[in-house]
Amino acid sequence: MALPSSLEELIEALRCLPGVGPKSAQRMAYHLLQYNPRGATRLSQAISRAVETLRRCQRCNNFTEAEVCERCVSSRRDATQLCIVEMPVDLNAMEQTHAYNGLYYVLMGRLSPLDGIGPRELAFDRLLARVGDGVVKEVILATNFTNEGEATAHYLYEMLHARGLKVSRIARGVPVGGEIEYTDAATVAQALIERREY
Amino acid sequence: MALPSSLEELIEALRCLPGVGPKSAQRMAYHLLQYNPRGATRLSQAISRAVETLRRCQRCNNFTEAEVCERCVSSRRDATQLCIVEMPVDLNAMEQTHAYNGLYYVLMGRLSPLDGIGPRELAFDRLLARVGDGVVKEVILATNFTNEGEATAHYLYEMLHARGLKVSRIARGVPVGGEIEYTDAATVAQALIERREY
Repeated sequence: MALPSSLEELIEALRCLPGVGPKSAQRMAYHLLQYNPRGATRLSQAISRAVETLRRCQRCNNFTEAEVCERCVSSRRDATQLCIVEMPVDLNAMEQTHAYNGLYYVLMGRLSPLDGIGPRELAFDRLLARVGDGVVKEVILATNFTNEGEATAHYLYEMLHARGLKVSRIARGVPVGGEIEYTDAATVAQALIERREY
Repeated sequence: MALPSSLEELIEALRCLPGVGPKSAQRMAYHLLQYNPRGATRLSQAISRAVETLRRCQRCNNFTEAEVCERCVSSRRDATQLCIVEMPVDLNAMEQTHAYNGLYYVLMGRLSPLDGIGPRELAFDRLLARVGDGVVKEVILATNFTNEGEATAHYLYEMLHARGLKVSRIARGVPVGGEIEYTDAATVAQALIERREY
């Protein structure tokens, strides 16, 4: 006796969500049907609306409903600074600091030769066109401090520096509130190397 | 600068899934948009189809697309045995054993007075109508061995026994493959009390 086909399909479709395996998908499907059919309908509509209306901003490559996103057209942002991040979530994290008022460029990935992701896949030519607008003076590299993020930052530095742009990298070091005793050796070593005058 | 409204709505709507908080919802939304817009569309359709087509079986209370589910109308199942489970997932787990060929009744919950769930909320009158069909001879209680599951089993036993039905409860004991040394004391104690002749 199989499950009803529409239930089977729902469980299968839920597995496209990240981190959702067969057990979680089954739990989610029953939860929606039993406790929240209205939430389920709302979710169905939200997904189809998002897929239909969201596209990439022509300037920063982030998701937006317009041709160019609100941030890129804002006159209150400093257009001379361009911060390059890997993903939209990184942009959101940067914005939450309220410490940056420039513009962004979202790579939507990082260089990862083993996965076949190179400069072409990340459309570095689009990025070059963006930084060459004559307004951008400083590019801030805010890719992750993972191996791939570091490699991406290095590649971007070489590429952008060669075009005469000022390129900087956000700082590595002991986290705010962090105790040296409990910080990993590599981080402490970097914090020492990149020490600054007090 | 807020997120685009359709993205914001998608993140909010994803939170109706069990175990999904704001961070996971954000991750899921971006994942769908970036890597799997087709899967997202499929998910949207699967949800709306499931919500529209699935209803409760008139006989076993499980989800089905028909008036009465395939299992309840099957002539290959033993209609004299009725196994009562809390949830559809419990039914699925029982079926996976291939050790039972009777019919089921799904409570869609368990007695939980603190949450305001009593015999009325679980529609025990429907269950009574079901077991009183003149065909059912034995009712097997397969609610969980949690406090609430046990209380539900006890209540059901009293109710069904008073109507002259044979009522049994699935066995408690040391799990198959389990080592006594590592089994909790309460389970070992029960296994001892409920020992059977060899």
